[in-house]
Amino acid sequence: MSHYKAYLIDLDGTMYRGAKPVEGASEFVKYLETKHLPFMFLTNNSSKTAVQVADKLNDLGIPAHYEQIMTSSMATAIYISQQQGPSKVYVIGEQGLRDAMFKEGHELVDDNPDFVVIGIDHNINYEKLTKACLHVRNGAALISTNADRAIPTERGMVPGNGALTSVISVSTGTEPLFIGKPESIIMDQALARLGYDRDRVLMIGDNYHTDISAGINAGMDTLMVETGVSSFQEVKSYEKQPTYKYKNLIDWMIEKKQKD
Amino acid sequence: MSHYKAYLIDLDGTMYRGAKPVEGASEFVKYLETKHLPFMFLTNNSSKTAVQVADKLNDLGIPAHYEQIMTSSMATAIYISQQQGPSKVYVIGEQGLRDAMFKEGHELVDDNPDFVVIGIDHNINYEKLTKACLHVRNGAALISTNADRAIPTERGMVPGNGALTSVISVSTGTEPLFIGKPESIIMDQALARLGYDRDRVLMIGDNYHTDISAGINAGMDTLMVETGVSSFQEVKSYEKQPTYKYKNLIDWMIEKKQKD
Repeated sequence: MSHYKAYLIDLDGTMYRGAKPVEGASEFVKYLETKHLPFMFLTNNSSKTAVQVADKLNDLGIPAHYEQIMTSSMATAIYISQQQGPSKVYVIGEQGLRDAMFKEGHELVDDNPDFVVIGIDHNINYEKLTKACLHVRNGAALISTNADRAIPTERGMVPGNGALTSVISVSTGTEPLFIGKPESIIMDQALARLGYDRDRVLMIGDNYHTDISAGINAGMDTLMVETGVSSFQEVKSYEKQPTYKYKNLIDWMIEKKQKD
Repeated sequence: MSHYKAYLIDLDGTMYRGAKPVEGASEFVKYLETKHLPFMFLTNNSSKTAVQVADKLNDLGIPAHYEQIMTSSMATAIYISQQQGPSKVYVIGEQGLRDAMFKEGHELVDDNPDFVVIGIDHNINYEKLTKACLHVRNGAALISTNADRAIPTERGMVPGNGALTSVISVSTGTEPLFIGKPESIIMDQALARLGYDRDRVLMIGDNYHTDISAGINAGMDTLMVETGVSSFQEVKSYEKQPTYKYKNLIDWMIEKKQKD
Protein backbone atom coordinates (compact mmCIF):
# COMPACT_ATOMS: atom_id res chain seq x y z
CA MET A 1 0.00 0.00 0.00
CA SER A 2 2.90 2.34 0.54
CA HIS A 3 3.65 2.69 -3.16
CA TYR A 4 0.83 5.25 -3.68
CA LYS A 5 2.25 8.70 -4.23
CA ALA A 6 -1.04 10.59 -4.06
CA TYR A 7 -4.66 10.18 -3.02
CA LEU A 8 -8.09 11.09 -4.36
CA ILE A 9 -10.62 11.25 -1.56
CA ASP A 10 -14.41 11.36 -1.65
CA LEU A 11 -16.17 13.70 0.78
CA ASP A 12 -19.75 12.74 1.68
CA GLY A 13 -19.71 9.44 3.59
CA THR A 14 -15.90 9.33 3.60
CA MET A 15 -14.87 12.62 5.25
CA TYR A 16 -18.21 13.68 6.70
CA ARG A 17 -21.82 12.65 7.05
CA GLY A 18 -24.04 15.72 6.94
CA ALA A 19 -22.60 18.15 9.51
CA LYS A 20 -20.42 15.57 11.32
CA PRO A 21 -16.92 14.32 10.50
CA VAL A 22 -16.49 10.60 9.81
CA GLU A 23 -14.38 8.73 12.39
CA GLY A 24 -10.69 8.84 11.44
CA ALA A 25 -11.16 11.38 8.61
CA SER A 26 -9.21 14.17 10.29
CA GLU A 27 -6.44 11.82 11.48
CA PHE A 28 -6.11 10.31 8.02
CA VAL A 29 -5.76 13.64 6.22
CA LYS A 30 -3.30 14.91 8.85
CA TYR A 31 -1.31 11.71 8.34
CA LEU A 32 -1.09 12.43 4.58
CA GLU A 33 0.07 15.97 5.33
CA THR A 34 2.75 14.73 7.76
CA LYS A 35 4.02 12.34 5.10
CA HIS A 36 3.90 15.10 2.42
CA LEU A 37 1.63 12.93 0.30
CA PRO A 38 -0.43 15.03 -2.12
CA PHE A 39 -4.20 14.56 -2.16
CA MET A 40 -7.37 16.00 -3.61
CA PHE A 41 -10.97 15.85 -2.52
CA LEU A 42 -13.55 14.91 -5.14
CA THR A 43 -17.25 15.62 -4.82
CA ASN A 44 -20.23 15.21 -7.11
CA ASN A 45 -21.94 18.01 -5.19
CA SER A 46 -22.17 20.83 -7.72
CA SER A 47 -23.86 23.38 -5.48
CA LYS A 48 -20.87 24.53 -3.42
CA THR A 49 -17.73 26.41 -4.47
CA ALA A 50 -14.26 25.01 -3.74
CA VAL A 51 -13.82 27.65 -1.02
CA GLN A 52 -17.10 26.69 0.63
CA VAL A 53 -16.13 23.01 0.59
CA ALA A 54 -12.68 23.72 2.05
CA ASP A 55 -14.27 25.88 4.76
CA LYS A 56 -16.60 23.06 5.72
CA LEU A 57 -13.73 20.58 5.96
CA ASN A 58 -11.70 22.99 8.07
CA ASP A 59 -14.68 23.58 10.37
CA LEU A 60 -14.78 19.81 10.93
CA GLY A 61 -11.09 19.71 11.81
CA ILE A 62 -10.02 18.31 8.45
CA PRO A 63 -7.15 20.22 6.83
CA ALA A 64 -7.99 21.32 3.27
CA HIS A 65 -7.08 24.15 0.92
CA TYR A 66 -9.53 25.20 -1.78
CA GLU A 67 -7.02 24.19 -4.44
CA GLN A 68 -7.33 20.62 -3.17
CA ILE A 69 -11.03 20.50 -4.02
CA MET A 70 -12.45 19.25 -7.31
CA THR A 71 -16.22 19.52 -7.58
CA SER A 72 -18.27 18.14 -10.46
CA SER A 73 -19.00 21.79 -11.32
CA MET A 74 -15.31 22.60 -11.71
CA ALA A 75 -14.75 19.44 -13.74
CA THR A 76 -17.66 20.44 -15.98
CA ALA A 77 -16.30 23.95 -16.52
CA ILE A 78 -12.83 22.58 -17.34
CA TYR A 79 -14.28 19.97 -19.69
CA ILE A 80 -16.09 22.67 -21.68
CA SER A 81 -12.86 24.70 -21.92
CA GLN A 82 -11.05 21.64 -23.24
CA GLN A 83 -13.74 21.11 -25.84
CA GLN A 84 -13.90 24.60 -27.29
CA GLY A 85 -12.42 27.20 -24.98
CA PRO A 86 -14.52 29.97 -23.44
CA SER A 87 -18.15 29.20 -24.32
CA LYS A 88 -21.70 30.43 -23.99
CA VAL A 89 -23.40 28.34 -21.36
CA TYR A 90 -26.99 28.15 -20.17
CA VAL A 91 -26.86 26.98 -16.56
CA ILE A 92 -29.42 25.34 -14.31
CA GLY A 93 -27.73 25.06 -10.94
CA GLU A 94 -26.54 26.79 -7.81
CA GLN A 95 -23.64 29.01 -6.78
CA GLY A 96 -20.96 26.34 -7.10
CA LEU A 97 -21.81 25.72 -10.74
CA ARG A 98 -22.18 29.38 -11.72
CA ASP A 99 -18.97 30.25 -9.93
CA ALA A 100 -17.06 27.41 -11.63
CA MET A 101 -18.27 28.51 -15.08
CA PHE A 102 -17.36 32.12 -14.39
CA LYS A 103 -13.87 31.23 -13.07
CA GLU A 104 -13.19 29.15 -16.18
CA GLY A 105 -14.10 32.12 -18.39
CA HIS A 106 -17.42 30.92 -19.73
CA GLU A 107 -20.26 33.32 -20.38
CA LEU A 108 -23.57 32.57 -18.68
CA VAL A 109 -26.30 33.28 -21.22
CA ASP A 110 -30.04 32.92 -21.50
CA ASP A 111 -30.11 32.73 -25.30
CA ASN A 112 -28.19 30.80 -27.95
CA PRO A 113 -25.87 28.81 -25.68
CA ASP A 114 -23.33 26.30 -27.00
CA PHE A 115 -23.89 24.18 -23.91
CA VAL A 116 -26.78 23.51 -21.57
CA VAL A 117 -25.33 22.56 -18.18
CA ILE A 118 -27.40 21.21 -15.32
CA GLY A 119 -26.42 20.64 -11.70
CA ILE A 120 -28.58 20.23 -8.61
CA ASP A 121 -30.88 23.23 -8.28
CA HIS A 122 -33.18 23.55 -5.30
CA ASN A 123 -34.90 26.42 -7.11
CA ILE A 124 -35.63 24.35 -10.21
CA ASN A 125 -38.78 25.46 -12.02
CA TYR A 126 -40.71 24.85 -15.23
CA GLU A 127 -39.30 27.89 -17.03
CA LYS A 128 -35.69 26.83 -16.42
CA LEU A 129 -36.46 23.33 -17.71
CA THR A 130 -38.33 24.75 -20.69
CA LYS A 131 -35.40 26.96 -21.70
CA ALA A 132 -33.01 24.03 -21.34
CA CYS A 133 -35.21 21.84 -23.58
CA LEU A 134 -35.58 24.56 -26.23
CA HIS A 135 -31.80 25.16 -26.28
CA VAL A 136 -31.04 21.43 -26.59
CA ARG A 137 -33.58 21.11 -29.41
CA ASN A 138 -31.80 24.04 -31.08
CA GLY A 139 -28.51 22.14 -30.98
CA ALA A 140 -26.84 23.04 -27.66
CA ALA A 141 -24.86 20.15 -26.14
CA LEU A 142 -26.37 18.76 -22.92
CA ILE A 143 -23.96 18.30 -20.03
CA SER A 144 -24.94 17.22 -16.53
CA THR A 145 -22.58 17.58 -13.57
CA ASN A 146 -23.50 14.15 -12.23
CA ALA A 147 -26.00 11.33 -12.53
CA ASP A 148 -26.88 10.91 -8.83
CA ARG A 149 -30.48 9.74 -8.68
CA ALA A 150 -31.07 10.49 -5.03
CA ILE A 151 -29.37 12.32 -2.17
CA PRO A 152 -29.55 11.05 1.41
CA THR A 153 -30.95 13.66 3.83
CA GLU A 154 -32.54 13.61 7.28
CA ARG A 155 -35.94 13.49 5.52
CA GLY A 156 -34.93 10.47 3.43
CA MET A 157 -33.72 10.08 -0.15
CA VAL A 158 -34.53 13.23 -2.14
CA PRO A 159 -34.11 13.85 -5.88
CA GLY A 160 -30.53 14.14 -7.10
CA ASN A 161 -29.25 15.92 -10.17
CA GLY A 162 -29.51 12.79 -12.30
CA ALA A 163 -33.26 12.75 -11.64
CA LEU A 164 -33.65 16.46 -12.52
CA THR A 165 -31.58 15.94 -15.67
CA SER A 166 -34.03 13.29 -16.86
CA VAL A 167 -36.68 15.96 -17.54
CA ILE A 168 -34.47 17.38 -20.30
CA SER A 169 -33.22 14.04 -21.62
CA VAL A 170 -36.70 12.45 -21.68
CA SER A 171 -38.37 15.51 -23.19
CA THR A 172 -35.77 16.07 -25.93
CA GLY A 173 -34.67 12.47 -26.49
CA THR A 174 -31.06 13.61 -25.98
CA GLU A 175 -28.68 11.69 -23.75
CA PRO A 176 -26.66 13.99 -21.48
CA LEU A 177 -22.90 13.76 -20.99
CA PHE A 178 -22.31 13.19 -17.28
CA ILE A 179 -19.08 14.55 -15.77
CA GLY A 180 -18.99 13.49 -12.09
CA LYS A 181 -18.23 10.10 -10.54
CA PRO A 182 -18.53 7.30 -11.68
CA GLU A 183 -17.50 8.90 -15.00
CA SER A 184 -13.79 9.13 -15.59
CA ILE A 185 -13.90 12.77 -16.76
CA ILE A 186 -13.73 14.18 -13.23
CA MET A 187 -11.06 11.60 -12.33
CA ASP A 188 -8.87 12.50 -15.30
CA GLN A 189 -9.01 16.16 -14.37
CA ALA A 190 -8.13 15.51 -10.74
CA LEU A 191 -5.23 13.28 -11.80
CA ALA A 192 -4.00 15.98 -14.18
CA ARG A 193 -4.11 18.49 -11.36
CA LEU A 194 -2.21 16.13 -9.01
CA GLY A 195 0.37 15.40 -11.70
CA TYR A 196 0.79 11.70 -10.97
CA ASP A 197 0.15 8.67 -13.16
CA ARG A 198 -3.04 6.87 -12.25
CA ASP A 199 -1.21 3.73 -11.14
CA ARG A 200 0.48 5.70 -8.38
CA VAL A 201 -2.78 7.20 -7.04
CA LEU A 202 -5.35 5.57 -4.75
CA MET A 203 -9.05 6.48 -4.93
CA ILE A 204 -10.82 6.37 -1.55
CA GLY A 205 -14.57 6.41 -1.04
CA ASP A 206 -17.67 4.89 0.56
CA ASN A 207 -20.05 4.65 -2.38
CA TYR A 208 -19.44 1.71 -4.69
CA HIS A 209 -21.58 3.08 -7.51
CA THR A 210 -19.89 6.48 -7.64
CA ASP A 211 -16.47 6.54 -5.87
CA ILE A 212 -15.27 2.99 -6.33
CA SER A 213 -16.72 2.64 -9.83
CA ALA A 214 -15.09 5.95 -10.78
CA GLY A 215 -11.72 4.61 -9.67
CA ILE A 216 -12.27 1.32 -11.48
CA ASN A 217 -13.46 3.13 -14.63
CA ALA A 218 -10.39 5.34 -14.52
CA GLY A 219 -8.09 2.32 -14.20
CA MET A 220 -7.02 3.15 -10.64
CA ASP A 221 -6.68 1.18 -7.41
CA THR A 222 -9.49 1.82 -4.97
CA LEU A 223 -10.03 1.72 -1.22
CA MET A 224 -13.60 1.29 -0.03
CA VAL A 225 -14.63 2.31 3.48
CA GLU A 226 -17.89 1.29 5.14
CA THR A 227 -18.67 4.68 6.67
CA GLY A 228 -21.29 5.84 4.17
CA VAL A 229 -23.62 4.42 1.56
CA SER A 230 -22.34 0.99 0.46
CA SER A 231 -21.78 -2.11 2.60
CA PHE A 232 -19.16 -4.82 2.04
CA GLN A 233 -22.03 -7.34 2.14
CA GLU A 234 -23.72 -5.59 -0.82
CA VAL A 235 -20.48 -5.20 -2.75
CA LYS A 236 -19.54 -8.91 -2.36
CA SER A 237 -21.73 -9.91 -5.30
CA TYR A 238 -20.32 -7.32 -7.74
CA GLU A 239 -18.04 -8.46 -10.51
CA LYS A 240 -15.43 -5.75 -10.04
CA GLN A 241 -14.14 -5.48 -6.49
CA PRO A 242 -12.43 -2.56 -4.73
CA THR A 243 -8.67 -3.14 -4.39
CA TYR A 244 -8.93 -2.69 -0.61
CA LYS A 245 -11.79 -2.77 1.85
CA TYR A 246 -11.46 -1.26 5.33
CA LYS A 247 -14.26 -0.62 7.82
CA ASN A 248 -12.94 2.93 8.22
CA LEU A 249 -9.76 4.95 7.70
CA ILE A 250 -8.58 4.29 11.26
CA ASP A 251 -8.32 0.57 10.44
CA TRP A 252 -6.46 1.46 7.25
CA MET A 253 -3.92 3.56 9.18
CA ILE A 254 -3.42 0.85 11.83
CA GLU A 255 -2.63 -1.78 9.22
CA LYS A 256 -0.49 0.62 7.21
CA LYS A 257 1.59 1.52 10.27
CA GLN A 258 2.10 -2.16 11.08
CA LYS A 259 3.38 -2.78 7.54
CA ASP A 260 5.54 0.37 7.35
CA MET B 1 -68.36 3.61 -41.78
CA SER B 2 -71.96 4.15 -40.90
CA HIS B 3 -72.10 1.25 -38.47
CA TYR B 4 -70.43 3.28 -35.68
CA LYS B 5 -72.90 4.18 -32.98
CA ALA B 6 -70.66 6.57 -31.06
CA TYR B 7 -67.43 8.54 -31.35
CA LEU B 8 -64.39 9.33 -29.21
CA ILE B 9 -62.70 12.51 -30.36
CA ASP B 10 -59.31 13.97 -29.54
CA LEU B 11 -59.06 17.71 -28.95
CA ASP B 12 -55.62 19.25 -29.60
CA GLY B 13 -54.80 18.93 -33.30
CA THR B 14 -58.20 17.42 -34.08
CA MET B 15 -60.72 20.01 -32.81
CA TYR B 16 -58.37 22.97 -32.29
CA ARG B 17 -54.78 24.07 -32.64
CA GLY B 18 -53.91 26.47 -29.83
CA ALA B 19 -56.65 29.13 -29.86
CA LYS B 20 -57.98 28.29 -33.34
CA PRO B 21 -60.55 25.67 -34.44
CA VAL B 22 -59.40 23.01 -36.90
CA GLU B 23 -61.09 23.13 -40.32
CA GLY B 24 -64.30 21.06 -40.29
CA ALA B 25 -64.26 20.47 -36.51
CA SER B 26 -67.39 22.46 -35.82
CA GLU B 27 -69.26 21.04 -38.85
CA PHE B 28 -68.32 17.50 -37.88
CA VAL B 29 -69.55 17.79 -34.29
CA LYS B 30 -72.76 19.50 -35.43
CA TYR B 31 -73.27 16.64 -37.91
CA LEU B 32 -73.01 14.11 -35.04
CA GLU B 33 -75.55 16.10 -33.05
CA THR B 34 -77.97 16.23 -35.97
CA LYS B 35 -77.72 12.48 -36.36
CA HIS B 36 -78.13 11.97 -32.58
CA LEU B 37 -74.82 10.09 -32.50
CA PRO B 38 -73.27 10.17 -28.99
CA PHE B 39 -69.68 11.35 -28.65
CA MET B 40 -67.06 12.25 -26.08
CA PHE B 41 -63.94 14.37 -26.22
CA LEU B 42 -60.75 12.86 -24.83
CA THR B 43 -57.72 14.91 -23.79
CA ASN B 44 -54.43 14.12 -22.11
CA ASN B 45 -54.32 17.72 -20.87
CA SER B 46 -54.69 17.37 -17.10
CA SER B 47 -54.58 21.06 -16.25
CA LYS B 48 -58.10 22.09 -17.22
CA THR B 49 -61.45 21.10 -15.74
CA ALA B 50 -64.20 19.58 -17.89
CA VAL B 51 -66.13 22.85 -17.66
CA GLN B 52 -63.11 24.86 -18.83
CA VAL B 53 -62.59 22.49 -21.78
CA ALA B 54 -66.28 22.66 -22.78
CA ASP B 55 -66.19 26.45 -22.54
CA LYS B 56 -63.19 26.58 -24.85
CA LEU B 57 -64.90 24.35 -27.41
CA ASN B 58 -68.07 26.43 -27.28
CA ASP B 59 -66.04 29.63 -27.72
CA LEU B 60 -64.62 28.07 -30.91
CA GLY B 61 -68.11 27.27 -32.20
CA ILE B 62 -67.90 23.57 -31.38
CA PRO B 63 -70.91 22.29 -29.44
CA ALA B 64 -69.87 20.48 -26.24
CA HIS B 65 -71.29 19.87 -22.77
CA TYR B 66 -68.94 19.34 -19.83
CA GLU B 67 -70.31 15.82 -19.40
CA GLN B 68 -68.93 15.01 -22.85
CA ILE B 69 -65.36 15.72 -21.72
CA MET B 70 -62.97 13.10 -20.35
CA THR B 71 -59.59 14.50 -19.30
CA SER B 72 -56.66 12.37 -18.16
CA SER B 73 -57.22 13.93 -14.72
CA MET B 74 -60.79 12.66 -14.56
CA ALA B 75 -59.71 9.23 -15.78
CA THR B 76 -57.02 9.17 -13.07
CA ALA B 77 -59.50 10.10 -10.33
CA ILE B 78 -61.96 7.44 -11.51
CA TYR B 79 -59.21 4.83 -11.74
CA ILE B 80 -58.22 5.44 -8.11
CA SER B 81 -61.87 5.10 -7.03
CA GLN B 82 -62.08 1.79 -8.87
CA GLN B 83 -58.95 0.55 -7.11
CA GLN B 84 -59.88 1.37 -3.53
CA GLY B 85 -62.66 3.93 -3.29
CA PRO B 86 -62.11 7.38 -1.77
CA SER B 87 -58.36 7.70 -1.13
CA LYS B 88 -55.69 9.96 0.26
CA VAL B 89 -53.84 11.50 -2.66
CA TYR B 90 -50.73 13.68 -2.87
CA VAL B 91 -51.09 15.74 -6.03
CA ILE B 92 -48.58 17.56 -8.21
CA GLY B 93 -50.65 19.32 -10.84
CA GLU B 94 -52.99 22.14 -11.70
CA GLN B 95 -56.64 22.98 -11.22
CA GLY B 96 -57.98 20.30 -13.55
CA LEU B 97 -56.29 17.54 -11.57
CA ARG B 98 -57.16 18.87 -8.12
CA ASP B 99 -60.74 19.45 -9.19
CA ALA B 100 -61.06 15.94 -10.63
CA MET B 101 -59.73 14.37 -7.40
CA PHE B 102 -62.08 16.46 -5.28
CA LYS B 103 -65.14 15.66 -7.41
CA GLU B 104 -64.37 11.93 -7.18
CA GLY B 105 -64.28 12.18 -3.37
CA HIS B 106 -60.56 11.80 -2.83
CA GLU B 107 -58.78 13.67 -0.07
CA LEU B 108 -55.81 15.84 -1.09
CA VAL B 109 -53.13 15.33 1.57
CA ASP B 110 -49.54 16.36 2.17
CA ASP B 111 -48.69 13.39 4.42
CA ASN B 112 -49.20 9.63 4.24
CA PRO B 113 -50.98 9.42 0.86
CA ASP B 114 -52.06 6.12 -0.68
CA PHE B 115 -51.33 7.55 -4.12
CA VAL B 116 -48.91 10.08 -5.55
CA VAL B 117 -50.50 11.59 -8.66
CA ILE B 118 -48.66 13.83 -11.08
CA GLY B 119 -50.00 15.90 -13.96
CA ILE B 120 -48.49 18.83 -15.80
CA ASP B 121 -47.59 21.55 -13.29
CA HIS B 122 -46.20 24.87 -14.49
CA ASN B 123 -45.39 25.66 -10.87
CA ILE B 124 -43.35 22.50 -10.36
CA ASN B 125 -40.58 22.91 -7.78
CA TYR B 126 -38.00 20.89 -5.88
CA GLU B 127 -40.09 20.61 -2.72
CA LYS B 128 -43.07 19.14 -4.58
CA LEU B 129 -40.80 16.60 -6.28
CA THR B 130 -39.08 15.80 -2.98
CA LYS B 131 -42.38 15.09 -1.23
CA ALA B 132 -43.51 12.90 -4.12
CA CYS B 133 -40.27 10.88 -3.97
CA LEU B 134 -40.46 10.46 -0.19
CA HIS B 135 -44.10 9.28 -0.39
CA VAL B 136 -43.31 6.80 -3.18
CA ARG B 137 -40.37 5.44 -1.19
CA ASN B 138 -42.77 5.06 1.75
CA GLY B 139 -45.05 2.89 -0.37
CA ALA B 140 -47.52 5.23 -2.08
CA ALA B 141 -48.49 4.10 -5.59
CA LEU B 142 -47.21 6.37 -8.37
CA ILE B 143 -49.77 7.39 -10.99
CA SER B 144 -49.13 9.85 -13.81
CA THR B 145 -51.97 11.37 -15.82
CA ASN B 146 -50.07 10.92 -19.10
CA ALA B 147 -46.67 10.15 -20.58
CA ASP B 148 -46.42 13.06 -23.05
CA ARG B 149 -42.73 13.95 -23.34
CA ALA B 150 -43.19 17.33 -24.95
CA ILE B 151 -45.96 19.81 -25.67
CA PRO B 152 -46.00 21.92 -28.84
CA THR B 153 -46.19 25.66 -28.10
CA GLU B 154 -45.38 28.84 -29.97
CA ARG B 155 -41.92 28.75 -28.35
CA GLY B 156 -41.29 25.19 -29.53
CA MET B 157 -41.57 21.81 -27.81
CA VAL B 158 -41.65 22.31 -24.04
CA PRO B 159 -41.54 19.63 -21.31
CA GLY B 160 -44.67 17.49 -20.99
CA ASN B 161 -45.92 15.62 -17.98
CA GLY B 162 -44.08 12.44 -18.96
CA ALA B 163 -40.81 14.36 -18.69
CA LEU B 164 -41.72 15.80 -15.27
CA THR B 165 -42.79 12.37 -14.08
CA SER B 166 -39.33 10.99 -14.87
CA VAL B 167 -37.83 12.91 -11.93
CA ILE B 168 -39.85 10.72 -9.55
CA SER B 169 -39.45 7.47 -11.49
CA VAL B 170 -35.69 7.91 -11.99
CA SER B 171 -35.08 9.03 -8.41
CA THR B 172 -37.13 6.26 -6.76
CA GLY B 173 -36.64 3.50 -9.33
CA THR B 174 -40.44 3.12 -9.48
CA GLU B 175 -42.28 2.88 -12.77
CA PRO B 176 -45.41 5.05 -12.84
CA LEU B 177 -48.80 3.88 -14.02
CA PHE B 178 -49.83 6.14 -16.89
CA ILE B 179 -53.56 6.77 -17.40
CA GLY B 180 -53.93 8.94 -20.53
CA LYS B 181 -53.65 8.06 -24.22
CA PRO B 182 -52.09 5.81 -25.56
CA GLU B 183 -52.98 3.76 -22.46
CA SER B 184 -56.31 1.99 -22.60
CA ILE B 185 -57.36 3.09 -19.10
CA ILE B 186 -58.74 6.44 -20.26
CA MET B 187 -60.35 4.71 -23.28
CA ASP B 188 -62.10 2.10 -21.13
CA GLN B 189 -63.54 4.81 -18.91
CA ALA B 190 -64.78 6.87 -21.84
CA LEU B 191 -66.36 3.76 -23.41
CA ALA B 192 -68.03 2.92 -20.09
CA ARG B 193 -69.45 6.44 -19.93
CA LEU B 194 -70.72 6.23 -23.53
CA GLY B 195 -72.27 2.83 -22.87
CA TYR B 196 -71.36 1.26 -26.22
CA ASP B 197 -69.25 -1.77 -27.02
CA ARG B 198 -65.84 -0.83 -28.37
CA ASP B 199 -66.53 -2.35 -31.78
CA ARG B 200 -69.34 0.16 -32.34
CA VAL B 201 -67.22 3.20 -31.44
CA LEU B 202 -64.72 5.05 -33.64
CA MET B 203 -61.67 6.83 -32.16
CA ILE B 204 -60.67 10.00 -34.05
CA GLY B 205 -57.39 11.84 -33.63
CA ASP B 206 -54.32 13.43 -35.22
CA ASN B 207 -51.50 12.01 -33.12
CA TYR B 208 -50.50 8.47 -34.02
CA HIS B 209 -48.54 7.89 -30.81
CA THR B 210 -51.32 8.95 -28.48
CA ASP B 211 -54.77 9.00 -30.17
CA ILE B 212 -54.43 6.30 -32.79
CA SER B 213 -52.31 4.03 -30.60
CA ALA B 214 -54.85 4.45 -27.79
CA GLY B 215 -57.62 3.28 -30.12
CA ILE B 216 -55.52 0.37 -31.38
CA ASN B 217 -54.52 -0.60 -27.81
CA ALA B 218 -58.18 -0.51 -26.76
CA GLY B 219 -59.17 -2.75 -29.67
CA MET B 220 -61.13 -0.05 -31.49
CA ASP B 221 -61.33 1.20 -35.05
CA THR B 222 -59.50 4.49 -35.58
CA LEU B 223 -59.69 7.48 -37.90
CA MET B 224 -56.55 9.52 -38.33
CA VAL B 225 -56.68 13.11 -39.56
CA GLU B 226 -53.66 15.06 -40.75
CA THR B 227 -54.55 18.32 -39.02
CA GLY B 228 -52.12 18.08 -36.11
CA VAL B 229 -48.94 16.24 -35.11
CA SER B 230 -48.60 13.10 -37.26
CA SER B 231 -48.37 12.86 -41.04
CA PHE B 232 -49.59 9.99 -43.23
CA GLN B 233 -46.07 9.82 -44.67
CA GLU B 234 -44.62 9.16 -41.20
CA VAL B 235 -47.33 6.67 -40.27
CA LYS B 236 -46.85 4.63 -43.47
CA SER B 237 -43.93 2.73 -42.00
CA TYR B 238 -45.69 1.73 -38.79
CA GLU B 239 -46.79 -1.85 -38.32
CA LYS B 240 -50.27 -1.08 -37.04
CA GLN B 241 -52.23 1.27 -39.30
CA PRO B 242 -55.23 3.46 -38.53
CA THR B 243 -58.47 1.97 -39.85
CA TYR B 244 -59.14 5.17 -41.84
CA LYS B 245 -57.00 8.10 -42.92
CA TYR B 246 -58.56 11.40 -44.01
CA LYS B 247 -56.78 14.70 -44.54
CA ASN B 248 -59.40 16.35 -42.36
CA LEU B 249 -62.92 15.81 -41.06
CA ILE B 250 -64.44 17.69 -44.03
CA ASP B 251 -63.12 14.98 -46.37
CA TRP B 252 -64.50 12.35 -44.05
CA MET B 253 -67.98 13.94 -44.13
CA ILE B 254 -67.93 14.30 -47.92
CA GLU B 255 -67.13 10.62 -48.40
CA LYS B 256 -69.59 9.57 -45.74
CA LYS B 257 -72.43 11.56 -47.37
CA GLN B 258 -71.62 10.00 -50.73
CA LYS B 259 -71.90 6.51 -49.23
CA ASP B 260 -74.99 7.17 -47.08
